[in-house]
Amino acid sequence: MKRPSGRVADQLRSIRITRNYTKHAEGSVLVEFGDTKVICTASVESGVPRFLKGQGQGWLTAEYGMLPRATGERNQREASRGKQGGRTLEIQRLIGRSLRAALDMSKLGENTIYLDCDVIQADGGTRTASITGAMVALMDALKVLKKRGALKGEPLKQMVAAVSVGIYQGEPVLDLDYLEDSAAETDLNVVMTDAGGFIEVQGTAEGAPFQPEELNAMLALAKKGVTELFELQRAALVD
Amino acid sequence: MKRPSGRVADQLRSIRITRNYTKHAEGSVLVEFGDTKVICTASVESGVPRFLKGQGQGWLTAEYGMLPRATGERNQREASRGKQGGRTLEIQRLIGRSLRAALDMSKLGENTIYLDCDVIQADGGTRTASITGAMVALMDALKVLKKRGALKGEPLKQMVAAVSVGIYQGEPVLDLDYLEDSAAETDLNVVMTDAGGFIEVQGTAEGAPFQPEELNAMLALAKKGVTELFELQRAALVD
Amino acid sequence: MKRPSGRVADQLRSIRITRNYTKHAEGSVLVEFGDTKVICTASVESGVPRFLKGQGQGWLTAEYGMLPRATGERNQREASRGKQGGRTLEIQRLIGRSLRAALDMSKLGENTIYLDCDVIQADGGTRTASITGAMVALMDALKVLKKRGALKGEPLKQMVAAVSVGIYQGEPVLDLDYLEDSAAETDLNVVMTDAGGFIEVQGTAEGAPFQPEELNAMLALAKKGVTELFELQRAALVD
Amino acid sequence: MKRPSGRVADQLRSIRITRNYTKHAEGSVLVEFGDTKVICTASVESGVPRFLKGQGQGWLTAEYGMLPRATGERNQREASRGKQGGRTLEIQRLIGRSLRAALDMSKLGENTIYLDCDVIQADGGTRTASITGAMVALMDALKVLKKRGALKGEPLKQMVAAVSVGIYQGEPVLDLDYLEDSAAETDLNVVMTDAGGFIEVQGTAEGAPFQPEELNAMLALAKKGVTELFELQRAALVD
Amino acid sequence: MKRPSGRVADQLRSIRITRNYTKHAEGSVLVEFGDTKVICTASVESGVPRFLKGQGQGWLTAEYGMLPRATGERNQREASRGKQGGRTLEIQRLIGRSLRAALDMSKLGENTIYLDCDVIQADGGTRTASITGAMVALMDALKVLKKRGALKGEPLKQMVAAVSVGIYQGEPVLDLDYLEDSAAETDLNVVMTDAGGFIEVQGTAEGAPFQPEELNAMLALAKKGVTELFELQRAALVD
Amino acid sequence: MKRPSGRVADQLRSIRITRNYTKHAEGSVLVEFGDTKVICTASVESGVPRFLKGQGQGWLTAEYGMLPRATGERNQREASRGKQGGRTLEIQRLIGRSLRAALDMSKLGENTIYLDCDVIQADGGTRTASITGAMVALMDALKVLKKRGALKGEPLKQMVAAVSVGIYQGEPVLDLDYLEDSAAETDLNVVMTDAGGFIEVQGTAEGAPFQPEELNAMLALAKKGVTELFELQRAALVD
Repeated sequence: MKRPSGRVADQLRSIRITRNYTKHAEGSVLVEFGDTKVICTASVESGVPRFLKGQGQGWLTAEYGMLPRATGERNQREASRGKQGGRTLEIQRLIGRSLRAALDMSKLGENTIYLDCDVIQADGGTRTASITGAMVALMDALKVLKKRGALKGEPLKQMVAAVSVGIYQGEPVLDLDYLEDSAAETDLNVVMTDAGGFIEVQGTAEGAPFQPEELNAMLALAKKGVTELFELQRAALVD
Repeated sequence: MKRPSGRVADQLRSIRITRNYTKHAEGSVLVEFGDTKVICTASVESGVPRFLKGQGQGWLTAEYGMLPRATGERNQREASRGKQGGRTLEIQRLIGRSLRAALDMSKLGENTIYLDCDVIQADGGTRTASITGAMVALMDALKVLKKRGALKGEPLKQMVAAVSVGIYQGEPVLDLDYLEDSAAETDLNVVMTDAGGFIEVQGTAEGAPFQPEELNAMLALAKKGVTELFELQRAALVD
Repeated sequence: MKRPSGRVADQLRSIRITRNYTKHAEGSVLVEFGDTKVICTASVESGVPRFLKGQGQGWLTAEYGMLPRATGERNQREASRGKQGGRTLEIQRLIGRSLRAALDMSKLGENTIYLDCDVIQADGGTRTASITGAMVALMDALKVLKKRGALKGEPLKQMVAAVSVGIYQGEPVLDLDYLEDSAAETDLNVVMTDAGGFIEVQGTAEGAPFQPEELNAMLALAKKGVTELFELQRAALVD
Repeated sequence: MKRPSGRVADQLRSIRITRNYTKHAEGSVLVEFGDTKVICTASVESGVPRFLKGQGQGWLTAEYGMLPRATGERNQREASRGKQGGRTLEIQRLIGRSLRAALDMSKLGENTIYLDCDVIQADGGTRTASITGAMVALMDALKVLKKRGALKGEPLKQMVAAVSVGIYQGEPVLDLDYLEDSAAETDLNVVMTDAGGFIEVQGTAEGAPFQPEELNAMLALAKKGVTELFELQRAALVD
Repeated sequence: MKRPSGRVADQLRSIRITRNYTKHAEGSVLVEFGDTKVICTASVESGVPRFLKGQGQGWLTAEYGMLPRATGERNQREASRGKQGGRTLEIQRLIGRSLRAALDMSKLGENTIYLDCDVIQADGGTRTASITGAMVALMDALKVLKKRGALKGEPLKQMVAAVSVGIYQGEPVLDLDYLEDSAAETDLNVVMTDAGGFIEVQGTAEGAPFQPEELNAMLALAKKGVTELFELQRAALVD
Repeated sequence: MKRPSGRVADQLRSIRITRNYTKHAEGSVLVEFGDTKVICTASVESGVPRFLKGQGQGWLTAEYGMLPRATGERNQREASRGKQGGRTLEIQRLIGRSLRAALDMSKLGENTIYLDCDVIQADGGTRTASITGAMVALMDALKVLKKRGALKGEPLKQMVAAVSVGIYQGEPVLDLDYLEDSAAETDLNVVMTDAGGFIEVQGTAEGAPFQPEELNAMLALAKKGVTELFELQRAALVD
């Protein structure tokens, strides 16, 4: 098996995490998984959505978007279509759930953190890059909240990171780019904590069904990948 | 561990699959997983969406809805809100992908099958009930197409069925109802083929992250569950 | 004249009213007018819409929907189209006005009752079936409010029921099914009280205009029909 | 009984029908029922909606709107709310059905006539004024089509006109203005042909239910009213 | 150069400003610039939008619309399309900014004035006619507020009026009608105060770019035009 | 007068134009006017909108967006609000008109060019930066079309660039940043051609009206600014 990217099966793409990418947001990160580039900002607002009012806790929510020409063919702008597509909503729900798993909301104070993940160039794995980058933006936003004295303790429970794995030409491979993803038989997105637990596991057979042993092989690859991603996150967070 | 439902850990709810539930659709099934009740209809239209025109193949798509008072509290009607929510879109995309896995589109002729899954009473597991019931409605629609001579071979590749599993009070349990689901630490939806492969695996840690061995225990339970569901589907399909 | 249904001119279809059809709603009825089947739920929420706040009275509103394949040809789902059609809005406004006529809002307390009428199988007369069934669901919801001590007196002023009449092949006929309705020259929907007054009379000439004497003949038939419907409602309400 | 308007029970408001009110439309009428003022335009386009293509017949459709401050309190502009309300849709469906009854579509050629009824000042009876005025605009549009040689015969089957009647302080009255309408116990809109048949009869009990004899008294009043309206239409159409 | 309208280069169309055109609004004006006819109403509501609450000042906002057949070809009704187009939003933003320049919001009390400009017949220059007419409607609304004692001083800072100018066949011309506008090389809309200052200058090269000296010649023409418009506004405001 | 930015009155911010910023689009530019950063992509599609079909010419259209946290406070994502705001539509219409002025559509072949301008960081002048950057992206897209042999001659008529000018503390200043813009009495956006003509001039008095001589002083500044911008565009286009 030869990957189109030339990488070996368990090799991540070149990953870059650039903090303070834009100047207004409390946290702002450009995350690059190879040619996939996502701007992840964390915005802090005081107050919480109506369903949480008066409970003394915080909230975190995420939104996801793609510039119309982030992809090979131009997609219609969702703002001009008048609605977000199903894929967009599915991804932003995943990002929100994943990052909420990083926090203890009761320590956040009555604040809301918005994570905006906007893909400026897509080459496969935008959702996993988004989660991995948003985690770093979130860390910066927490620092701002800490400085403002707006927290009620340490809200960080654990770091999260995400990677895709798949079966490509019968073999499990890590961190698929667009070409690999298009040809993969199975596509699995894995969100993990730095303690090694799973937050989300979402696998889809694109062609033939996959077997339990394939699933386990992919999960092992994912674990190797996120372990490296946690190191890259930590390195990026050193001032 | 005592399940709120009183069931043992690997026990499905009482399942009922009623064919010909309504009279107009080519396939019409009422599927009941305990108190969860979903009307699944399969509608056949000749022609395919624009992106498939002229390729000599068919298509299958799914939509999902809930009556406003299918749940304990009334939800605003999506038609009057003016859009389908993210959860709805996520579920109908899952149903569509799962059922497309059952078919060889090149044998379907230029026909489109719409699977509508409408929950009239919800008690947990509406997406897995929908997939399991829609499979039966799809079989009836295929029979209609066969009679009409509209097929180009046998489109059925395999049966699919789905079940939820979870970790409840530290133990893996099968087919969670609403009460169990609300209290579960982990929620996993599994779509399988009757040959034992996975089509979709979607697991979410609601509280603590889950571990690989928990995942494998849940997958084993799911396999047991869908095996029973395939038998129930087959029994329902005997005229 | 021979009706397609084989019924005599003043004969209702077989009517069935099943209470407690689903388990969550305060009132839940499956109403069947022949092959027309509608789930009518009554949901109680405390509080009233903004325009009534602080006036010490209650409110009742209705929504209507059809499953996409309730009809011979599949209709696009209104939730995915992003709006309710004109026919839907017209019908749900009629249901709401009709059922509000049953109540004295000043006795309802500051509560809102939502009547959801969802057609699962359509064969003509869905609006009149909806009104007739919703009346029974409303009665059950009033009982719940009474038990909760949430009422400020007896809000029930009168029962309402509805039936369609038409001119078919020159003769007035009662309770048209789809085939009869499609061929009728005139279509008249009548909502009455159990004291014999009219709440709504909506007649439309589909072909030739209709004459005053035809109108009166149809109204007489309608009166006969709703008289039977009131008996069926009362019978259904006996515990 | 003394009507707020000072009129006797069977007296129409002062009615004015001004043709050629605006210059672009094939038919353009300002219709005034007292202080109710509606601009009715008839626009001709060649071609028909998709569901009628290739059947060699024409189509007529109507739209209704109100300027935001046509009423005592300003209403939010429907274009900025992003949807037409239920009342608007109900009225424009009524106008469309009523005016379609005036035509034999098979004689219209493959043309579509749009009737736009825009209320610039409202004082009760906007839907009946709209129908009465739109009939005159339609006649002018038919003349244009005739001149163009675009017709396949005479499409006009009959004239239509409409008026409201109601029970005010226990007595039937003709052509209610806003003050009368707000206080009426019953409100009935009647669309008739110049041969004396009914096209639409829509009655609503606002307070107490109404009785058959009241309905007949109102219908007799309506007949007197539309007879006068037909004369006014004819007078307006004399060049 | 001969203008299609036969006017000389610096000649306005025949302008008419009719106050009290409809009866409900606090200010209601029909403004006519030749065949362009716009109904401008000023509606007063107590209270201000959320972003101004508690600041003791007032607000003014504008909305713009066109009847579907105000133009040579029928346009789809924005209310039924479900959104206002870009041109509509651009114009109503311009009207709002222009008229806000007339007022000192701190003297208006916590009141909101809505200016609705609805074009019933279009022949070029609808935005400048709207601004000029809305100014007069606004004056009438201020009188109503004054009578009610709802003001905190004199909110009127200055009168505003607007006119279009353009380069037609190489020459600057004033107040273009539709035919002239369609053929003009440059189109410039100018909003001025009665003290001779500019509020808005919006020029667009439709064909060849325009030069600074052309711009200045057009601005001089505009000044002449608005000077006449201010006289017409003042004349109209004499009771 | 001292500008907040410390610049002299006729000084542009530091301008950077980076080509090939993302990899998929036919033209892709990051344009920076100081801290204002906009990604401008030019996407080529064969075919033209319906209203131009069969006329043998091309089309160019523009869309504009801002990432939610491009600004000091987070703005709601337009895709999730379900519509583009008036400001967005106004700006994208300006960009489209300005760039269409650069081309002779009859030479473009039946191709459509989409210019997407997405602001990733806003600090004033996003519309003028967008136009200036989009011009460069457009040049790259024209090269691609030329290579493909898809043109019918040289479509480029002239370069365009844009800059804002304003009156700040009584003095005309060039290229306002956000702080300056917020405090400016007048704001003027100018789009020019490299031959020195005006394409668009849009001036708004934010406080006091502006006078003709102020307008001319601002236009002179703008001319100086765009002259520098044309040099920067040309420099960026050198391979």
